Order: sequence, then structure tokens, then C-alpha cells
Amino acid sequence: MTDNTRVLLKRRCEGVPVAGDFEVTSAVVESPADGQLLCETIYLSLDPYLRGRISGRHISGSVQPGELMPGEAISRVTTSRHPDYVPGELVAAHSGWQSQPVIDAASARRIDPGIGPLSTSLGILGMPGLTAYAGLLRLGEPVAGDTVLVSAASGAVGSLVGQIAKIKGCRVVGIAGAPEKCAWVTHVAGFDDVVSYKSGDLREALDRACPDGIDVYFDNVGGATLDTVLSLINLHARTAICGMISEYNLTAPELAPRVTRALLVNRARMQGLLVHDWADRRAEGIAQMASWIKAGELVYKEDVIDGIENMPAAFLRLLRGENFGKQLIKAGDPA
Amino acid sequence: MTDNTRVLLKRRCEGVPVAGDFEVTSAVVESPADGQLLCETIYLSLDPYLRGRISGRHISGSVQPGELMPGEAISRVTTSRHPDYVPGELVAAHSGWQSQPVIDAASARRIDPGIGPLSTSLGILGMPGLTAYAGLLRLGEPVAGDTVLVSAASGAVGSLVGQIAKIKGCRVVGIAGAPEKCAWVTHVAGFDDVVSYKSGDLREALDRACPDGIDVYFDNVGGATLDTVLSLINLHARTAICGMISEYNLTAPELAPRVTRALLVNRARMQGLLVHDWADRRAEGIAQMASWIKAGELVYKEDVIDGIENMPAAFLRLLRGENFGKQLIKAGDPA
Repeated sequence: MTDNTRVLLKRRCEGVPVAGDFEVTSAVVESPADGQLLCETIYLSLDPYLRGRISGRHISGSVQPGELMPGEAISRVTTSRHPDYVPGELVAAHSGWQSQPVIDAASARRIDPGIGPLSTSLGILGMPGLTAYAGLLRLGEPVAGDTVLVSAASGAVGSLVGQIAKIKGCRVVGIAGAPEKCAWVTHVAGFDDVVSYKSGDLREALDRACPDGIDVYFDNVGGATLDTVLSLINLHARTAICGMISEYNLTAPELAPRVTRALLVNRARMQGLLVHDWADRRAEGIAQMASWIKAGELVYKEDVIDGIENMPAAFLRLLRGENFGKQLIKAGDPA
Repeated sequence: MTDNTRVLLKRRCEGVPVAGDFEVTSAVVESPADGQLLCETIYLSLDPYLRGRISGRHISGSVQPGELMPGEAISRVTTSRHPDYVPGELVAAHSGWQSQPVIDAASARRIDPGIGPLSTSLGILGMPGLTAYAGLLRLGEPVAGDTVLVSAASGAVGSLVGQIAKIKGCRVVGIAGAPEKCAWVTHVAGFDDVVSYKSGDLREALDRACPDGIDVYFDNVGGATLDTVLSLINLHARTAICGMISEYNLTAPELAPRVTRALLVNRARMQGLLVHDWADRRAEGIAQMASWIKAGELVYKEDVIDGIENMPAAFLRLLRGENFGKQLIKAGDPA
């Protein structure tokens, strides 16, 4: 058996992370204790929220230099010391950036290979899918006819938010960057319109794309984009704050006009979103998303990079917005 | 019959309003048409939201120079040309800063003199009371044991918010200014603690007064106070944005740290409040407040100034925070 490849945080990140903040190491494979599973990693998920985990500011706690980088992965059980699992079974767990994790069975989630391609359990049928589902429906409360605006619209969460809003009868506008992403958002994901945040006057472009104003804003980016959107919201608008990728690398908060006037004048709502708050509706969300996929009502896009040793570079690429679709690392054989 | 004393907006206000922005005039008393009532004004209400109405930015529309200053008043009917009203009856209406308004009966609200002292229909049993009731209970969703923080705590709305939160079993902390207001907030209105925004380090003082953090913030002032409070909110905190008196006189928005991180990390909510959105629950709110007053569970404070010609000065005083309690102008005989 080969060694366990592990990617560690080498030093605390300030500002834009660089490759040297991480270290790829090799360790002896551990033996599972009672109740544990030794696994081999197949897919690893890279998500923007990990930026917060390495700066000492994240709600789920901070990674210390020298520690394994955290993250969710799909793995295959190779040795089971838990009566409910046998070798060959597939599990999802927060087992971090390593190739041969030992996982507490109690913290693993069994993957039903029949529900869809394996990778979807880290995307549309996993955390990003549930984030989109719960965030839009519970915090956004879209009503047919509403204009729903979504930032990072070609991303893992944003692309689903827009499609679910379309299913709910809304007019859906996305914000994305590169031309090929903008094209995908309207031509493949079926948004009604898209605006590039790279193309000049964002306010003017949004004003044109949302002639009836904005009823729901699902925000993945924060920053100046959010400031601009708040100047265009409608009476009783709902803004779900899901992410703020434009602010993750800041070393001090940027200053911006206060939101009080926009919220007061429009009697509007802003609310922060974390998918774990909706864990009790996980089954409902997954079942609904799976059924929409089966009915051909949802499309999704993945950006898969090979090799666990490429995780640091892939993470930096994600933070630069250069991924296109749900970012995954393939570390083992899915078949 | 004497003339109708009217107070007009003389010119659009930029920055801090001055007495010369208003003009006290005298006009011939109009005759009511069919469906109208001629009245004599008894009490006029002065409210911070009127600042927005004269700057061209308020949701309910802007007052133009030369127009009558708007506002709610309690009046006695002197001539009725509507079958439902007889002279001597008392009505509340948005009849503006004038002594002898002609009011469309359809836009008037009959006052039951038995419900409480006449002036309370502009305060605790009127718009400010309903604002406190609906804003705290619907937007704040306080739960027994929560820490509820209220700014402008000695004011018409704030003082009621805190007392209702106490009734609901919360720990209640107020923010006020002058020492006599702070003393009233704890000794008379029964808040658990009070912090003066004039006394040095607000963050430190709030941290001490709210050792378990802040679950609900009912905000009447906006500005730097809000920024500070957001750094102390708890998981799933609710902030009701009811007013922003510290920002009303600004000619350009101040810059402040963005709220995204505080909302996201705490999965917290901020929402703008306008009492008219809760009009369908008016009867419920008034009945509940009246019953709490009768049970001795609510106290209220009024600041009454005589003479309609003093309205401009009283309004400027209100905007400087120098009133103490609900600001009323007595223009006629309540008895």
C-alpha cells in the first residue's frame, strides 16, 4: 500500500494565498480503530468558504499551520472496523486533503451510487446543492414573477439558484465574469439574462437587465457588487448573503455606504446563510434536486482537476474565479 | 372664526434644517365639501421620519417648497359634511401642520376617547406604539431569555420596544444620551441596563451591558452605533431597522465597514421596518397595548410644547435629540 498523501497548511494566510502557504507531504497510512474506516479518496471538493478557515476567522474554527487542510471528500472504504460498513462502499466525509483518510464511521454519510454520478454528491446533490435549495427557497422566498438576481452565476451554487428560481416561475438574471461563463449561464443554464461584472458600469447593466427591479438577490460575492445591487432592490426585497468571495482576501474591511437607507426605504431584508442550519431538511432537498435532475430541469457543470498534489494550485485558481463550474479534484478511480 | 394657521416648507433642506426652512402663515379657513370635515387641531405629532419627507428622499413622497408640512394630528370636528360624523367628535388624520384642517372623512380615523388620554392616540396607542409592537414582535421575534438592545431608548418607539421585550421575558438594554434619559430608561421604563452613546467607548460599554451578546437589535439611529452593535450580535440575531436619525441630516452617505461578514458569520438578519406594512394588525396591536397600559405594565412619556407656531423650533429640537419622550404640539383644547 502506498503512503497517505496529505496537504497541510504551512502558514497562516494574510491577503491573497500563495502556493507556499501549503505543503504536500507523505505519511504512513494509519490503521483504523474500532468504529473507524480506512478509505481511499476519490473526489475532493474545493469551496470558497475554505479561505475563511485558513485566516482564523471562520465560524467552523481555524486551521493551524502544520494541520491538515479541511474539506469534504467522497471515498471508498478499504478497511472497515464498523459493523455497518463493508469494503467497497462509498462514503462522504469531511476527511480533508488526503488520499487515504481514516474516518469515524459516525461522521460519514453513505453515498447511494444510484442517485447520480458520484461527483454530484459533492455538488448538486451535496453541500452546494443544498445551499442553493435552502438559501433560495427559505431566505429568498421567491414568488412567481419576481426578479431573482444571482452573483457567481456560473458557480456551483449560483447556477443552481438561478435554475431553481426559473422552476419557481421567476425572471432570473445572473452576474458572471468571463464571456464563456456568461454565455453558459443563459444558453445552457437557461437564465433570462446575464451581466458581466467585468463590463463597465455594473449599475447601468443591472438596471437594463432588471427593468422591474430586484426582488431577490442571492449573493455569493459581497463587496462593491452588493453595494450596487442594494441601490436597485424593490420594496420588500430579500437578500441572502451566502458568500463574499470578493472580500475573503481583504486584510482589513473595505468601507462602503451603509445599507440602512436601502433596507429602510424598501423595508427589505438581508440574511446570512449557512447550509448547516438547514440540515434537518437535507433529505427533502436532495430528493427534490434529484427529481429535478431526472426530469431534465436542472443542469450542472463540474471543473475536475486530477491529482491531490494539485489542490493548492486549484484552490488559488478558485479564489481567482478561474474555475468554471463546481471545483473538484479527482484523487482516485470513481469506477 | 379665526384664520387657519399653517406651517409651510419654505425651501428644500440640505444638511441640518434651520428655522428659516419653514414659514408660519395664516390663511382663510376653507369650507368642507361633501364627504369632508372641518376640524380644529388639538394635538400634532412630530416624528423623526418627517426629516426624510423634506429632503426629497422619503418613501411616502417629498414635500415641495411652498407646501404644507405633513404630519398626523388629533382634531375635533367642527363642521361635518359626512353622515358618519357629528361636530364634537375626535378624529386622527394626516392633516399636516395647520390649526383648522379640512379632512376627507374617508382618510380620518375616529378616536375612542375612552381608550386613554387623547394624546396617546399619537403615541403609545398610535403610530409609534404600533411601530414598537409590530417591529419588535414581527421582525425581532424575541424569545424569553434573549438580550434585546434598543437605541433611542427613551424615545416614543424605543421606550415601548424595551418594555414589550421585558413583558416577553427578555433581558433589555437601552442606548440613550443625556443622564436624565438614561436614568428614566432603567428606573421608570424598567430596562435592565442602559448605555449612553455619549460616554466614551460604546463597544466596551455594550460588551459589559450585554455579557451574553445581542440577540435582537431594534435600531432607531443607524450610523456608527449600528456598526458597533453588529460587531456584538449573536448567532441568528435579528436587527430591525426602524429609523436612522443619526443619518437623516447627511448630505452624502457615510462610509462604514460592510455588514456582510457580521451577517454571514452569525447567519443573522437585518430588515427595514415601516409600520404601514402591519396595518392589518393595527386593531390587535392597539388592543394589546391598551390592555398592558391598563395592567400597569407599560409606561410612556410625552414632551408637549404649546402652540402650532412653535412647530419648526420643536422639530429642530427633536432632530437634535433634545426632546424627552414622545414629541407633541398642543394646538387646541383637549377637554
